[in-house]
Amino acid sequence: MDWKNKMSEYMTMVNDALENYIGEHQTVNAEVFEAMKYSLFAGGKRLRPIFSLAVCELLGKEAKQVIPYACALEMIHTYSLVHDDLPAMDDDEIRRGKPTNHIVYGEGIAILAGDGLLNKAYEIMIDHTLKLEKPILGLKAMKSIADASGTNGMIGGQTADLLNEGKEVDEKTLTYIHHNKTGALIAAALKAGSYMADADDNEAESWEKIGYTLGLAFQIQDDLLDIEGDASEMGKPAGSDERNKKMTYPALYGIEASRKKVDELTKEVQTFLKVYGNESNFLSALTNALMNRRS
Amino acid sequence: MDWKNKMSEYMTMVNDALENYIGEHQTVNAEVFEAMKYSLFAGGKRLRPIFSLAVCELLGKEAKQVIPYACALEMIHTYSLVHDDLPAMDDDEIRRGKPTNHIVYGEGIAILAGDGLLNKAYEIMIDHTLKLEKPILGLKAMKSIADASGTNGMIGGQTADLLNEGKEVDEKTLTYIHHNKTGALIAAALKAGSYMADADDNEAESWEKIGYTLGLAFQIQDDLLDIEGDASEMGKPAGSDERNKKMTYPALYGIEASRKKVDELTKEVQTFLKVYGNESNFLSALTNALMNRRS
Repeated sequence: MDWKNKMSEYMTMVNDALENYIGEHQTVNAEVFEAMKYSLFAGGKRLRPIFSLAVCELLGKEAKQVIPYACALEMIHTYSLVHDDLPAMDDDEIRRGKPTNHIVYGEGIAILAGDGLLNKAYEIMIDHTLKLEKPILGLKAMKSIADASGTNGMIGGQTADLLNEGKEVDEKTLTYIHHNKTGALIAAALKAGSYMADADDNEAESWEKIGYTLGLAFQIQDDLLDIEGDASEMGKPAGSDERNKKMTYPALYGIEASRKKVDELTKEVQTFLKVYGNESNFLSALTNALMNRRS
Repeated sequence: MDWKNKMSEYMTMVNDALENYIGEHQTVNAEVFEAMKYSLFAGGKRLRPIFSLAVCELLGKEAKQVIPYACALEMIHTYSLVHDDLPAMDDDEIRRGKPTNHIVYGEGIAILAGDGLLNKAYEIMIDHTLKLEKPILGLKAMKSIADASGTNGMIGGQTADLLNEGKEVDEKTLTYIHHNKTGALIAAALKAGSYMADADDNEAESWEKIGYTLGLAFQIQDDLLDIEGDASEMGKPAGSDERNKKMTYPALYGIEASRKKVDELTKEVQTFLKVYGNESNFLSALTNALMNRRS
């Protein structure tokens, strides 16, 4: 199967499941459900869940095994964007070409919608894990995701990012921010996918490690696109990092060195994937596409 | 043992465990840890965790069995207060006699500290459940807490509360808000405590049900104190609900009817507890103390 067909097959699986998971509500709390759905279906690329599905399938299990954990990752990613866009954080009014959550629903509901998405992620994972034949695998997938999302993971990265806005940061701080703000969830996606395919801790940790490499390549590529990209393709104005005084890899090392770094990291990922032969064709093609994207 | 000694024994167990769970951090993300600790140790009564510990012990197991789930409940309760106090929500500057989180740390960090506490609650529960001999019990305790905290529980209640601020609400809406905003976490505390003492689903659900009764009594008593209480004892100005145009039970039914309702609900709880004989002495005394408190 062509990798793009596979991609859209995965995408449909994820979108259908997300729709289903948002579930029922009463009139009195309808607004928070609407706000959650608004951001969850605002055109996300579903990269994190797709990574989970692909790793699970690559390791010989059905992709659907990991669906609840994959969807939880997407909900956690989405909540982090909703809160990140708030006036007290990045103060962004546009994301993916659409008004951000608090612009549409107001700040109070946007805060609650973020909280709701984060909590829902755990509701889904716990519910599914309770029904598993081997709950321990689900618990390990959950632990990968929970640790990556917390104050020693994604939230830690957001904290460092927020506190250093407008400041010159050193390499150590920039690495910490990238590693945690972007890397951690991508690494958890790969790790959780491997656990749901019965991987042992060693194999799961090697997937996690390569996930951090992939995450860093993705982040630097993102920063390069922010400088060079076309606003209409990006869904946000080009150069927004510079205007927001965000420290980035290209700002610290220059464009050429950053491109070289993306190439090196991509090669590292491809070398890792090669060990799995043809089974890794999809992930290999997706990695290349991400590193050559224009938006 | 006198119930007040028992209370302070439980309190020490919870505080020590919370201190321990907050854990290690690096310099770069220290601020979010400080903000989490600030609100977590701002003088909370630890009611929800103490309910969990007491139910677990009442049912014949060691109270410490439920500590991770009890502490998770306190973290979830605390995060909900941090977010609730934000300018976009209730806009409160004082809680328990101290400046609220965003007054001390700024709105951005307060949002992240709330997110961090919510996520940490799940990190702790997942970590512990992985080590259990019967992970299914931990998963059931987690499910009780997750469902109660979400958009069909506490967050749903906060949504309805936020959207109805300054409006005349009917009995149905007020019941929804109380049931979900306050009742759900108290009910989950009792339910989770019973699961960690090996209760079956039927028994756990009867604890959950009486938890909602207890939660409603507690909420009405809180609203009565807001009208009648002494500001210095309450840690917040008396009459703040009226100034914030919050709809309350006393505002809808009057003070006398509200007092009568508290008495009725308390009797219902005591009748339930009586079945357990002397084992329920602590919970019985605590319930009476809560309904006769002045702050």
